[in-house]
Amino acid sequence: MSSEFGNALKVSVFGESHGDAIGVLMDGLPAGEAVDPDALQRFLDRRRPGKNILETARSEADVPRLLSGITGGRTNGSPVCAMIENRDARSGDYASFSDKPRPSHADYGAFVKWGGMADMRGGGHFSGRLTAPLCIAGGIAKQILARRGIFVGAHLSSVGAAADDPFPLFPEAPLFDAIAAKDIPVIKDTAGEGMRTEITSAAACGDSVGGTVECAIVGLPAGLGDPMFDGMENRLAKAVFGIPAIKGLEFGAGFAMSNMRGSEANDPFRAEDGKVTTESNNNGGILGGITTGMPIVFRVVIKPTPSIALPQRTVTLPDFENTELEIKGRHDPCVALRAVPALEAAAAAVALDMLLEEGKL
Amino acid sequence: MSSEFGNALKVSVFGESHGDAIGVLMDGLPAGEAVDPDALQRFLDRRRPGKNILETARSEADVPRLLSGITGGRTNGSPVCAMIENRDARSGDYASFSDKPRPSHADYGAFVKWGGMADMRGGGHFSGRLTAPLCIAGGIAKQILARRGIFVGAHLSSVGAAADDPFPLFPEAPLFDAIAAKDIPVIKDTAGEGMRTEITSAAACGDSVGGTVECAIVGLPAGLGDPMFDGMENRLAKAVFGIPAIKGLEFGAGFAMSNMRGSEANDPFRAEDGKVTTESNNNGGILGGITTGMPIVFRVVIKPTPSIALPQRTVTLPDFENTELEIKGRHDPCVALRAVPALEAAAAAVALDMLLEEGKL
Amino acid sequence: MSSEFGNALKVSVFGESHGDAIGVLMDGLPAGEAVDPDALQRFLDRRRPGKNILETARSEADVPRLLSGITGGRTNGSPVCAMIENRDARSGDYASFSDKPRPSHADYGAFVKWGGMADMRGGGHFSGRLTAPLCIAGGIAKQILARRGIFVGAHLSSVGAAADDPFPLFPEAPLFDAIAAKDIPVIKDTAGEGMRTEITSAAACGDSVGGTVECAIVGLPAGLGDPMFDGMENRLAKAVFGIPAIKGLEFGAGFAMSNMRGSEANDPFRAEDGKVTTESNNNGGILGGITTGMPIVFRVVIKPTPSIALPQRTVTLPDFENTELEIKGRHDPCVALRAVPALEAAAAAVALDMLLEEGKL
Amino acid sequence: MSSEFGNALKVSVFGESHGDAIGVLMDGLPAGEAVDPDALQRFLDRRRPGKNILETARSEADVPRLLSGITGGRTNGSPVCAMIENRDARSGDYASFSDKPRPSHADYGAFVKWGGMADMRGGGHFSGRLTAPLCIAGGIAKQILARRGIFVGAHLSSVGAAADDPFPLFPEAPLFDAIAAKDIPVIKDTAGEGMRTEITSAAACGDSVGGTVECAIVGLPAGLGDPMFDGMENRLAKAVFGIPAIKGLEFGAGFAMSNMRGSEANDPFRAEDGKVTTESNNNGGILGGITTGMPIVFRVVIKPTPSIALPQRTVTLPDFENTELEIKGRHDPCVALRAVPALEAAAAAVALDMLLEEGKL
Repeated sequence: MSSEFGNALKVSVFGESHGDAIGVLMDGLPAGEAVDPDALQRFLDRRRPGKNILETARSEADVPRLLSGITGGRTNGSPVCAMIENRDARSGDYASFSDKPRPSHADYGAFVKWGGMADMRGGGHFSGRLTAPLCIAGGIAKQILARRGIFVGAHLSSVGAAADDPFPLFPEAPLFDAIAAKDIPVIKDTAGEGMRTEITSAAACGDSVGGTVECAIVGLPAGLGDPMFDGMENRLAKAVFGIPAIKGLEFGAGFAMSNMRGSEANDPFRAEDGKVTTESNNNGGILGGITTGMPIVFRVVIKPTPSIALPQRTVTLPDFENTELEIKGRHDPCVALRAVPALEAAAAAVALDMLLEEGKL
Repeated sequence: MSSEFGNALKVSVFGESHGDAIGVLMDGLPAGEAVDPDALQRFLDRRRPGKNILETARSEADVPRLLSGITGGRTNGSPVCAMIENRDARSGDYASFSDKPRPSHADYGAFVKWGGMADMRGGGHFSGRLTAPLCIAGGIAKQILARRGIFVGAHLSSVGAAADDPFPLFPEAPLFDAIAAKDIPVIKDTAGEGMRTEITSAAACGDSVGGTVECAIVGLPAGLGDPMFDGMENRLAKAVFGIPAIKGLEFGAGFAMSNMRGSEANDPFRAEDGKVTTESNNNGGILGGITTGMPIVFRVVIKPTPSIALPQRTVTLPDFENTELEIKGRHDPCVALRAVPALEAAAAAVALDMLLEEGKL
Repeated sequence: MSSEFGNALKVSVFGESHGDAIGVLMDGLPAGEAVDPDALQRFLDRRRPGKNILETARSEADVPRLLSGITGGRTNGSPVCAMIENRDARSGDYASFSDKPRPSHADYGAFVKWGGMADMRGGGHFSGRLTAPLCIAGGIAKQILARRGIFVGAHLSSVGAAADDPFPLFPEAPLFDAIAAKDIPVIKDTAGEGMRTEITSAAACGDSVGGTVECAIVGLPAGLGDPMFDGMENRLAKAVFGIPAIKGLEFGAGFAMSNMRGSEANDPFRAEDGKVTTESNNNGGILGGITTGMPIVFRVVIKPTPSIALPQRTVTLPDFENTELEIKGRHDPCVALRAVPALEAAAAAVALDMLLEEGKL
Repeated sequence: MSSEFGNALKVSVFGESHGDAIGVLMDGLPAGEAVDPDALQRFLDRRRPGKNILETARSEADVPRLLSGITGGRTNGSPVCAMIENRDARSGDYASFSDKPRPSHADYGAFVKWGGMADMRGGGHFSGRLTAPLCIAGGIAKQILARRGIFVGAHLSSVGAAADDPFPLFPEAPLFDAIAAKDIPVIKDTAGEGMRTEITSAAACGDSVGGTVECAIVGLPAGLGDPMFDGMENRLAKAVFGIPAIKGLEFGAGFAMSNMRGSEANDPFRAEDGKVTTESNNNGGILGGITTGMPIVFRVVIKPTPSIALPQRTVTLPDFENTELEIKGRHDPCVALRAVPALEAAAAAVALDMLLEEGKL
């Protein structure tokens, strides 16, 4: 039940951080779609660990093996399964705290839920590593969407106090490409420098830092989605909250609308050349769960990496006695950085699912 | 597809604002549960329109008729269907703008999606009125949960610039009851007065104002939920974004965590009398999608009521020419006010669904 | 979970035989479809009780009230809810055996499952009466399909030893209409007379008799359906086994194929005027779960009405002592008779769901 | 959408007959369950091709690799993915008829559905080979069930005119084991000899022959299942019709009930030592979709292997001209033989899913 999303296109993620393999099953892809493995690899490389000093030292090539559903470079209509073998898994690093749940990690809940049977080495099935298979699914979805003029992009919109500019009213694919090519995926390079400082200074203290990511989908038609519980917002939320460490999600102006008047928040419609747009996009391209044809824009908050070098208070399992914990291991000081492609992947998979479900691809 | 949520307990909402009836179908309720119609009515009355001058003048008794699934005051194991007949539907008020989509309403997307066939009088199936059947489902869920010591409460946490106190670390049922008894459901009465001023001053300008609502579920066991895409956050999100006008959702400290360090954001575990809690609740009682046993705490933003008296720019349908629109009708100047019980309803239905699915009720 | 089927078009049935009302919720109907209430009523009248001496004496007008989803005689895109109020419910007839499960009825399983909380008067949610709301859904689906040249028909293919002819290789709508107009819905009238004798002679002994129904869907395109677990056969099965008393289902030649050779059972393809058909239809128009463009043909067996006047051995509840039971009440001596329109309804709903899901309507 | 079944335990099958790998994803298994790889292999060996002259000459070791979800020989609560690499795939055999759909195979429907993009070598995703991953899932389920005293067994009940005895009223595990150990899995060995003659004589003519399989689940509690569309029959049907070549399914006395009277078909209840059974089991252990505590008994018909050596009439693709086809390749003359463990697998997965969903494992 747990590790699947989508209606017409079901995406199911499997694997544990230190198990044999991680992977994804995609059931419902249209047949005849070319899958370019090089482009897919380039997308996966954007979230791959070990690229630079801001990220965990774990080194994984993360080259997926496509087991099914693709013949001669094209989808064949049957389910696509892809796997990545885990190679550089040093479980020893984690053994020491199997009996001490790490604060802000899933360890304690998992212990209660599965009575100690879960494989929690490296976070197990809860690990950020599981965003790699999500990125396989999303990377394939992005290729299919791009062929129809639909593009998904994201950027780090803030780390600590350092903030990037927001996306313009009509972001376009070249901007997404330019951001994706940067070490720190931002619009404004000076913002990226500020973020680098936030991250290195947190890391220097054995600490970590949070951030936000803004994501946009452009090119979707108006009229996509459903009212109430299966609209664009609900579906993006279901997928997006599957990415570890995300604790909030807002569309368009989001929480800022709490302090707006209607006259300010409402997006006036405007017609030009037989095409309808809105003059602002405070609703993030979604009204009543249904797309307006404007870019879909949402922002998430990613909490500071819970694994920090500083000592923390916790309890012993299964005896529940107070104790302290020091985490060694290898950890990103700011997981927001690597969440950027994962957000794009989730958004692309949701957009493709909705187009497929409504026969609009 | 659109109007249903839940796994073990499916909640399906039907009806249009100006149709014959609105209602809800609940499939999966446990058998033998007493349903107190008076308590249910009191809960429904909290969202009923026309209670005071801050709300729409539409007057509906909103007394549900239970059509099935209940025998002798108890659930009998088969699906519960409940309906509310629409009585005070003055469609004339709305007829004038069927050809002019109201900014920040679903009108335009619905027009594109259904080619003008949707019944959009009063917002149709997108109307805030559809939270009444949601509240029937949630009201029944609340009764079932309360019997197990699980309580759901919410308060207006802000309207415009006027902000209430947040919930304490361990909110309890009497606090929820005290809030629910107030005209403006807040913790701190002076905050309520500030909100009243925000609302009346917006209304006086023919305008509306946004707000936020904080909601808590207390008494849930640790270990409830699933990793990745079907955790507590994903499920609450799917339900909550079904409530009209909600544009953002955050758990625990939420967006504030973007500017925290891990050492500050992490919630240290503490054991006392064989029970594990956390010293803070920045994660809102959820880690990796799974409950920690701490209160589930989340906050939503509700945009300003899109229907305002001020003239707005829009386009004509189906010709797409620029024009202006003035909305008469009856509208709450601040829909956040009536979203409070709807939030509780969504949260209660989700919590009950999860308990049922895991056999933990 | 229990009372719903369909993917793109969800059909959820609610109500109990002796409760306030029975009904159906249909979520996913296309917008703009005319619903002719007279044609719907004529279809419902085909399953209505009390038409002739072969059927139960319970008299219900069974006129549905459409609560939502229809405006000006057309679907509006939001969920359609329809209800039928129960009027002629004489629960007294059933009270005597609430503590003695009726053999071949759901009573015992329901007692164990719901601990005596189920409303089993008249069979409760398990009653054949619940096929009335199924027929509302199917009747609406039939109207939508007929507009596209897709027709669903069924006939009693046997009662006891009396057997009707099978459908011809290419059955057509006029044949379906002719069958539907008969008291006993058969192709060959002499077969109908034989069935009448079977039924009246069983009834005269205080007994009941079983039968089979053959159903066909004509006009569906080739290429509809999915491999493995969501093909045409799987979906029809899921819906069809929801009709009480059905204990078997076969497609095309069905069980007769166990004694065929491949050379005999295989349906040779033939092309004519650019159109592909098969020379025989032993596979019932489905290969690998996918339609071939030939008529979909399936047959079900309906067990003898479990409620008989003859004394039967059973046990007491909740003490489990051996006892005897005599059933009074009002019962059809052959439920197969009234299952005919229910089969058509289930088949129509499934066909419409599949067309909608694949964007082929 | 297509290749998944189950509610609490989702089983998703992937792969093509001549692709890289076939496999299965199981999401929802309980944590802490031992998985014995040797016992699993023994179960898989029962359906492995190439064991004897009655079966296809394709030789595959079919040793599954468990990629995730299992740690130290026990399920860890996260999804289990298992794969089998395809080794002995001689696609050349199949190349000749990619433009001529084989009668009674899915080729034509797949061509229409996927516009020639499907990988139909060896039947592709429709191949009987896909029952291998189903057997992995079922084999694991069987181990989990057996630990609770729940056993699943099946036997060839007929091939052509040669018929085995039916299961006794209360079949037990040793009988299942004895059947499984035989080359031809029957109760009565002389029946097996008759079946061998049927198969070899069909094979000698370049032809194939159909059969039936009877399957039983013993040890399930009463009260399991749901009314209407999600009962035991509906769920078994959804899974069972996913096994290629199955064209009919009946529970208990099944189609024979069409010619029974109620007094004969009804199963009288009897209490002994505080336990309720029925004196006969014409309903196959299911009433109203809910288990009675009696053995679940069902029978399926498996059509003759569609691939025969005899020449057949078909059409050319994509031009639709009449032509002939001769199939070389390697094929079982009677697929019913190898369907026996696949039936057990489907039944075990369904039973486990239902127990998990109702918290009754």
